[in-house]
Amino acid sequence: MLKIIGYDGEEIETMGPEEINNENYNVIWVDCYDPSDEELLQLSKNIGIEIEELKAGLDELEVPRVEEEDDYYLIVYKAPLFEEDITTTSFGIFIKDNIILTIHIDKINSLGKIYSLLKTKKPKTFLDRGKGFFLYSLLNQITISYSRIMLNLDDELDRLEEVLLKHQDQNITTEILQLRKTLVYFHKALVSNKDVLSILKRKYLPITTQDDREHIEDLYYDTLQLIDMETTYRELLVSTMDMGISLENIRMNQKMKILTMITALFALPVWITGIYGMNFKYMPLLNNPYGFWVIFGITIMSIMLVLYVFSIEKWIK
Amino acid sequence: MLKIIGYDGEEIETMGPEEINNENYNVIWVDCYDPSDEELLQLSKNIGIEIEELKAGLDELEVPRVEEEDDYYLIVYKAPLFEEDITTTSFGIFIKDNIILTIHIDKINSLGKIYSLLKTKKPKTFLDRGKGFFLYSLLNQITISYSRIMLNLDDELDRLEEVLLKHQDQNITTEILQLRKTLVYFHKALVSNKDVLSILKRKYLPITTQDDREHIEDLYYDTLQLIDMETTYRELLVSTMDMGISLENIRMNQKMKILTMITALFALPVWITGIYGMNFKYMPLLNNPYGFWVIFGITIMSIMLVLYVFSIEKWIK
Amino acid sequence: MLKIIGYDGEEIETMGPEEINNENYNVIWVDCYDPSDEELLQLSKNIGIEIEELKAGLDELEVPRVEEEDDYYLIVYKAPLFEEDITTTSFGIFIKDNIILTIHIDKINSLGKIYSLLKTKKPKTFLDRGKGFFLYSLLNQITISYSRIMLNLDDELDRLEEVLLKHQDQNITTEILQLRKTLVYFHKALVSNKDVLSILKRKYLPITTQDDREHIEDLYYDTLQLIDMETTYRELLVSTMDMGISLENIRMNQKMKILTMITALFALPVWITGIYGMNFKYMPLLNNPYGFWVIFGITIMSIMLVLYVFSIEKWIK
Amino acid sequence: MLKIIGYDGEEIETMGPEEINNENYNVIWVDCYDPSDEELLQLSKNIGIEIEELKAGLDELEVPRVEEEDDYYLIVYKAPLFEEDITTTSFGIFIKDNIILTIHIDKINSLGKIYSLLKTKKPKTFLDRGKGFFLYSLLNQITISYSRIMLNLDDELDRLEEVLLKHQDQNITTEILQLRKTLVYFHKALVSNKDVLSILKRKYLPITTQDDREHIEDLYYDTLQLIDMETTYRELLVSTMDMGISLENIRMNQKMKILTMITALFALPVWITGIYGMNFKYMPLLNNPYGFWVIFGITIMSIMLVLYVFSIEKWIK
Amino acid sequence: MLKIIGYDGEEIETMGPEEINNENYNVIWVDCYDPSDEELLQLSKNIGIEIEELKAGLDELEVPRVEEEDDYYLIVYKAPLFEEDITTTSFGIFIKDNIILTIHIDKINSLGKIYSLLKTKKPKTFLDRGKGFFLYSLLNQITISYSRIMLNLDDELDRLEEVLLKHQDQNITTEILQLRKTLVYFHKALVSNKDVLSILKRKYLPITTQDDREHIEDLYYDTLQLIDMETTYRELLVSTMDMGISLENIRMNQKMKILTMITALFALPVWITGIYGMNFKYMPLLNNPYGFWVIFGITIMSIMLVLYVFSIEKWIK
Repeated sequence: MLKIIGYDGEEIETMGPEEINNENYNVIWVDCYDPSDEELLQLSKNIGIEIEELKAGLDELEVPRVEEEDDYYLIVYKAPLFEEDITTTSFGIFIKDNIILTIHIDKINSLGKIYSLLKTKKPKTFLDRGKGFFLYSLLNQITISYSRIMLNLDDELDRLEEVLLKHQDQNITTEILQLRKTLVYFHKALVSNKDVLSILKRKYLPITTQDDREHIEDLYYDTLQLIDMETTYRELLVSTMDMGISLENIRMNQKMKILTMITALFALPVWITGIYGMNFKYMPLLNNPYGFWVIFGITIMSIMLVLYVFSIEKWIK
Repeated sequence: MLKIIGYDGEEIETMGPEEINNENYNVIWVDCYDPSDEELLQLSKNIGIEIEELKAGLDELEVPRVEEEDDYYLIVYKAPLFEEDITTTSFGIFIKDNIILTIHIDKINSLGKIYSLLKTKKPKTFLDRGKGFFLYSLLNQITISYSRIMLNLDDELDRLEEVLLKHQDQNITTEILQLRKTLVYFHKALVSNKDVLSILKRKYLPITTQDDREHIEDLYYDTLQLIDMETTYRELLVSTMDMGISLENIRMNQKMKILTMITALFALPVWITGIYGMNFKYMPLLNNPYGFWVIFGITIMSIMLVLYVFSIEKWIK
Repeated sequence: MLKIIGYDGEEIETMGPEEINNENYNVIWVDCYDPSDEELLQLSKNIGIEIEELKAGLDELEVPRVEEEDDYYLIVYKAPLFEEDITTTSFGIFIKDNIILTIHIDKINSLGKIYSLLKTKKPKTFLDRGKGFFLYSLLNQITISYSRIMLNLDDELDRLEEVLLKHQDQNITTEILQLRKTLVYFHKALVSNKDVLSILKRKYLPITTQDDREHIEDLYYDTLQLIDMETTYRELLVSTMDMGISLENIRMNQKMKILTMITALFALPVWITGIYGMNFKYMPLLNNPYGFWVIFGITIMSIMLVLYVFSIEKWIK
Repeated sequence: MLKIIGYDGEEIETMGPEEINNENYNVIWVDCYDPSDEELLQLSKNIGIEIEELKAGLDELEVPRVEEEDDYYLIVYKAPLFEEDITTTSFGIFIKDNIILTIHIDKINSLGKIYSLLKTKKPKTFLDRGKGFFLYSLLNQITISYSRIMLNLDDELDRLEEVLLKHQDQNITTEILQLRKTLVYFHKALVSNKDVLSILKRKYLPITTQDDREHIEDLYYDTLQLIDMETTYRELLVSTMDMGISLENIRMNQKMKILTMITALFALPVWITGIYGMNFKYMPLLNNPYGFWVIFGITIMSIMLVLYVFSIEKWIK
Repeated sequence: MLKIIGYDGEEIETMGPEEINNENYNVIWVDCYDPSDEELLQLSKNIGIEIEELKAGLDELEVPRVEEEDDYYLIVYKAPLFEEDITTTSFGIFIKDNIILTIHIDKINSLGKIYSLLKTKKPKTFLDRGKGFFLYSLLNQITISYSRIMLNLDDELDRLEEVLLKHQDQNITTEILQLRKTLVYFHKALVSNKDVLSILKRKYLPITTQDDREHIEDLYYDTLQLIDMETTYRELLVSTMDMGISLENIRMNQKMKILTMITALFALPVWITGIYGMNFKYMPLLNNPYGFWVIFGITIMSIMLVLYVFSIEKWIK
């Protein structure tokens, strides 16, 4: 799917793929999402970058990096991906002349957000300051997207902790697994993105102005902060999981305690009543009118004794 | 909330926000805690730092660092935060001319302590030696605050160990989680603070004198010591937790032993008495006057035998 | 086993070992798999590399590296090995004049694949661009082979997760062990291969052209990506295993709960019925026509009471 | 407590604190253990080092380091501390002119040992070679002290392993915790001490001769060896603990096996005898003279059957 | 014990300790195993190295290193030690003029092997190429000794895995502990040896020729390969242990399942038969000729019901 937007300093216009090379526009943004083979071919022809090169942006496992080619720049970057779990996906940003091409195989929410912001609100904010600033805006939206998820994770961790204190079941366990997965993917993505930003902020690339580089430096620090949060959450998650295991053990021990106590309490009484359930003709006390009460008393006393032992051993408080 | 204090070399005076730029004072300390939008606006106007910049001090997750701007310095630092758990929070110290501005979204006890010290006792000690020394005093109070918590942690660990030897329950488990959380946050905070101090002690900044830098070097070593303590406590906590798990296992095994022993002791006797509880007309020994005693003797012997096996196997000592 | 192929710029021909030094061919590929002593001797004589040297390619544990000798180059590389588990094996690539010799003790699928591609399809693609490109093609096939396994691992992990949510048994446990083994071997292999590629891409070796080195640089990034995937999968596997343990614990706890509940429910009723099974002549209620119902009611009530306690304690939902 | 010893090249004499500056002595050793405020004051005055500085030697958590001041040197070093557990403590060595001052808040056995050696045996060995050699002797005694404990740890580990093979209880668990604690403290202490020795051996300090520095280099290698031993023991301890956990699991499983077997063996027989314990007037076999034997035979056979199943399943060997 | 061998270019002769300095021999090998004090004294006198220095070779914990002294070289190296477990021991190689002295407190198999090779077979192979080559031969034998053990470990791991799939008991657990111990010692030994070889292969020492250094470089790569194997085995051992724990848990869960099922199956039937075992005069169905069959049918049905629930819950397959 292709979405093409051109900005001529005044207005934002939706364009067709054949107009990509129109030099009347200051900035042209081409967003190419899960393109068909024909779209790719057309795009390649119009923009003048080979299909093989474009495909680098469509591999969701590509390692983030900055590549300088003769007539264009390629930035591979990792964005959050909202599927069943929250993982990450790579996408490519090609910058050639006044064209910025984002190309991705997965749906990237941040790009959609920028698109709707451009269409409805303050497009000038994003586009008036040139393609370097637009690049910054793209990366910024993605960083914000990470932040938002990370703040949710914080609440999620608190909730998990509370739930674990009450009980543990299959759902909690799979939720913890989701969280861990997300953190594993985020760790790798953020560390790679940090390296990309570190290059963009230091290196003189003709696509960014000094101002843009300063903005990107801010993004760099934001990404450091995200990495810091992510490692903290990871450690807290490990602590929470350990707590969960420990609580499970405690609960197991309590059940074991109850089981052992019940078994201990009734073992002797049941046996004693069993003895007097035997059908021997001659058994002591059998015909004694108080026989029943004597034996009943003995069993009650044995129960009392066991209870006393348990209370001594602090099994009952 | 804004608290402003000016020191003219003689007296300490509480000032209004409009007096901030008064150059008659040697040192002016502005403490800005969870400011309203209006307060921020007013502060920004009076002090001449943009609101966006000031907000860096209000993000509790900001990464500690030293920033040199054209006409002011910003130090982001992490202080302990006393909420439900003990975690950490970032705050900003802006230094511009004779003004020291501390700005924070969370309550920071160390700042309150300095404030009350200034108001009641020896204000000269803090303010007579200039803003560099005052900066040192601020950071020092925070380091002391960490130390105090860390020494509590030591006792806490000893107490935990003792309690775990007696029993383990949900409360202990959540206490351990609190401790681990605190140590995770402290580790990140102390390592970042160390980096800030390392810059302040080495770099020539016009806000500190040679003397101040020597004091800050002491703080640097104190922070190293805190990091050392913190990693030690972290490892001891892991050891203690492992001990807790091991003890739980031992207790589980003991309960299992008791349960198995009781079950084993009474299995055969109960069955034997069950046999003689059957209502067949013809059963051996049924009418024998010693039948009861024979069977009773057999069950007692089987109990003895099982006890003997257990004592051989060292289950009973 | 020896397979020798010569390419004279037009045709591909299968050759005998005595023709190895034929200079009419642009590229000669000798594939030597698990050679007999005689084959080795013959090879050594024909190709002019000592047997001891050739044997470096036959040690499946050899550390990957690039060795420059006077008149030939040796590259030791690690390829996936498909046996019971998927592990890795080292093999040697000797390059001397126009001869490329691959020598290996284990079956390497990627080499077989290249062989069949050469025989059936587009041989020119591989051989027209010289021995440097052929070397690249070899290494590329191996990288593709790793990728393919890695993508399977991804599905495997998802499947494992699903299965673990249902149950855990010996088979799952051994499957997890297989996976871990594969990842351990792959980690070591990929990191070593990366070092080899890093040398090949940077160092000027007369066997590669600038173009070849650029291709090899792509392989280098692919290998980085594989390492990234591999560490991700390793961490996900650990998470999945932890989930498995946690679920086992939960299931154990549930069984314990059921066991404890059943024991608790019937302990008192069984004892009470035991009491009235005693054969004393005089027992209360014995001859009362409602005696049975009274006692039966008491036992049912005790069962109800226990159930009520369990529902209070949230054991039954 | 102050102990002062002077050596004039001939004799060792015990001195009073006021004589510290006596220049007739070649070496004066002042050992200051847990001093009162007055002692500190007096010491500070006599020796010419400020109380604040002296106190650096009294903080048991101080980070080991070498400090060069204008007219004296301070070495902070960590020694083993024998309290309930074996941990470590920091102490200070001040070297000024011909005075060596050791100052510590905790009892340090190695210092006591040197003291008694000086008083009774070969004092010349220690003092004839100057203060640099005496410093070396001090540090050497401490290193020997570490070695001795480490060799005990080795035996301790072997003993633990043997005990764990027999049983595991609370005492073993706390012993393991002690060991781990000691190793945590030793690791930090030895690594810091190594850094101190590394400075002392390399750096030209006027307090040591070339010979002394060579001796200190030996100490440096001894400390490396201690660190090597300590990390080995730490890993062996982890292995031993894992073995302990594994053995506990095995024992638990065995108890579970016994419990399950007993329960399985008697479940059916008890029920069958229960059936024939019912008081119905009409039950099959009830009046048959062989009824008892038929039913008894059936129960015995059911027991046999269960035993057979268990032997098939390898529960019984 | 002293064994001295001299090689004069023709023959190998066993010598007495007093002949050590005989310059007629090209190479003299002195092997000194666990020497008595007299032997040490004699050796020290004859060879001209101080006893204190010689003792460095007798400390089995000495850190491997190369030391250059004025008139001799000392190489400390670690060899496998075959005692109860397989661990490692340090020994010293002193090289002075034409004498090579190996000195060790523990029995080192590789030295014995070289000795017997020298006495019986191809002594020239070892000694004709000078002392540098003999040094290489010594180190080579030790490396081969490590390799051999490592290959055994591989089989051992496979065996462990198979056994664990069947059952786990105390013997397996102690075997795993042995393996882990061996790997811990090997890791430290191999890493240190690697450093020694790295010095020997790079540094120009007059005791080795260029050829010797090339041989030692091969040893260096062999040691790298051993380290690689060792870390792989260590990780596989951890995987295998985790599998063992997991399998134990699964077995525990199975036993628990059986126990719970048996308890659940017979709880109600036993109680019902207990009810009809009560001796009340008036009980429903008591005198009904089909009473027994009604109740018997009810208990059988309850058993069926429970079995059905278990099969629904997938406890029975």
